[in-house]
Amino acid sequence: MHIQHYKKVEGVAVTSPDAKGATMHVVAGPQQGAQNFTMRVFELEPGGYSFDHHHDFEHEIFFHQGKGEVDYNEKTIKVSPGDTAFIPPNVQHQIRNTGDETMVFVCVIPNRE
Amino acid sequence: MHIQHYKKVEGVAVTSPDAKGATMHVVAGPQQGAQNFTMRVFELEPGGYSFDHHHDFEHEIFFHQGKGEVDYNEKTIKVSPGDTAFIPPNVQHQIRNTGDETMVFVCVIPNRE
Repeated sequence: MHIQHYKKVEGVAVTSPDAKGATMHVVAGPQQGAQNFTMRVFELEPGGYSFDHHHDFEHEIFFHQGKGEVDYNEKTIKVSPGDTAFIPPNVQHQIRNTGDETMVFVCVIPNRE
Repeated sequence: MHIQHYKKVEGVAVTSPDAKGATMHVVAGPQQGAQNFTMRVFELEPGGYSFDHHHDFEHEIFFHQGKGEVDYNEKTIKVSPGDTAFIPPNVQHQIRNTGDETMVFVCVIPNRE
């Protein structure tokens, strides 16, 4: 059992040319004994964005704080706290902070070999 | 791709003698095409609580709104927005809203046969 504020888990800067101002906190995963999936909490600075990418596994996302947009394929959808997203495998996507405060969202992925 | 506020997904009252004032919104799961795990958003009314239970799979939880407590085994831990919990398989646990507003948390579980 691990209960903690996500900020107590050290954040790792997302270093990718496709990302900017993004920090990841892995709050539950194999290191904590989670066998099936991993919960990450991301912070995006104002003007920041996550990778523009796609992959062969799904994302399940919950938007906790701040305002932003999700781009996928050629659509853009505004998101705010309480919104959720299911991103199926192999769909191009990027999340961007379009507000004035840090954007915080939870993103769960399956554990991989 | 499904993006929506969790309240747009119809809530289901949790009917159990061990739960009170609890509503579940299944925002991503097999119905949306998620193959590995299911994201549920729970609302607990002031004074409400989730089942006091245990099971052979893990929970990964993110607390979005409100204040409450997690009981597990014989411990109690206070939680507030931004807190996360990893609850391993077979650990007794219950979440209680101890505040004045609706408590909202995200809880992810593996898909099961």
